[in-house]
Amino acid sequence: MSIAADTIRNGVDSEKMYATLDLIKAQPELAKFQFRATNRWIDEAHNRSTIKGFYGAGGEDTTRTEEFQLDAGEPAILLGRNTGPNPVEYLLHALAACLTTSIVYVATARKVELTSVESTLTGEMDARGAFGLDDEPRNGFERISWSVRVTGNASEEKLREVVERARNRSAVYDMVTNGVPVSVDVTAG
Amino acid sequence: MSIAADTIRNGVDSEKMYATLDLIKAQPELAKFQFRATNRWIDEAHNRSTIKGFYGAGGEDTTRTEEFQLDAGEPAILLGRNTGPNPVEYLLHALAACLTTSIVYVATARKVELTSVESTLTGEMDARGAFGLDDEPRNGFERISWSVRVTGNASEEKLREVVERARNRSAVYDMVTNGVPVSVDVTAG
Repeated sequence: MSIAADTIRNGVDSEKMYATLDLIKAQPELAKFQFRATNRWIDEAHNRSTIKGFYGAGGEDTTRTEEFQLDAGEPAILLGRNTGPNPVEYLLHALAACLTTSIVYVATARKVELTSVESTLTGEMDARGAFGLDDEPRNGFERISWSVRVTGNASEEKLREVVERARNRSAVYDMVTNGVPVSVDVTAG
Repeated sequence: MSIAADTIRNGVDSEKMYATLDLIKAQPELAKFQFRATNRWIDEAHNRSTIKGFYGAGGEDTTRTEEFQLDAGEPAILLGRNTGPNPVEYLLHALAACLTTSIVYVATARKVELTSVESTLTGEMDARGAFGLDDEPRNGFERISWSVRVTGNASEEKLREVVERARNRSAVYDMVTNGVPVSVDVTAG
């Protein structure tokens, strides 16, 4: 195998990964990030977020040439027109994506070559909370289940360690399980 | 104005909304929902969720004829190729979308006609947590800021009440601020 082939693992440049970690160790202020989303109501439950710029590694990112657009909606039973996944489904996706990426990055750092990462997430809710009909059920999911299957060139034990480490370092898993303070600024009229 | 025009407010069928609320009051078991996402790793930080079916209102939904596909990725500075918004940006979108939809539904229920709902969310994080370099900064956002501007045919006071009620009933706001238990099931090898 060539040196280049050794450097890329799971599609990730492992040399760049180690270099990034060393750089942040030397200059911790480079680890400060600010991510953003701008959302606009379109009609009924249809709204759209645009995502492009962010701050990180000491400056404003310029590598994204086009903005990402995400459309949300609700199914008819929840008074919408299926213009996109609904917000709680987007939350399940955010959690799934973060756990998958974390598994890939941890595996790369530990020299494990993955062949597949597949997961299913389910969230259970009693909509009486969000509908404001009852104070008893909470508004959001009462619980979320994450079921993941990972295969690769390592023992079952090592693959399980990779998953466990990934879960312990996932940004969205941390936020969804522990909560985050949200400040609110309203302009009306 | 015709009766039909009176029924539709903010694009939402208010008569259907009231009928839905009455139905759930009479049969609370109809409020039980299960939402789902299935995620598959593609390469490097690129992974994709598919979202289609859900359980609600006493049965499995059949109104979605096609599945939604959501691609996640990371920018180069975070070792990806910008194949989509990253997971924490998706979380900001989930929160934005839920708060916007909640504002629209609360306004509709309170007979307020909105002309615009626009919001910007920012999340601040120190990536040393997620990178596993330091136990001090948490993995996820330290804080999220939600800045929203709402206009419509009501007083500033009433519009602010709508926003406040929406925040108090938003499913994603509840989950992001209070956290949710997540169960884990791993299959490896």
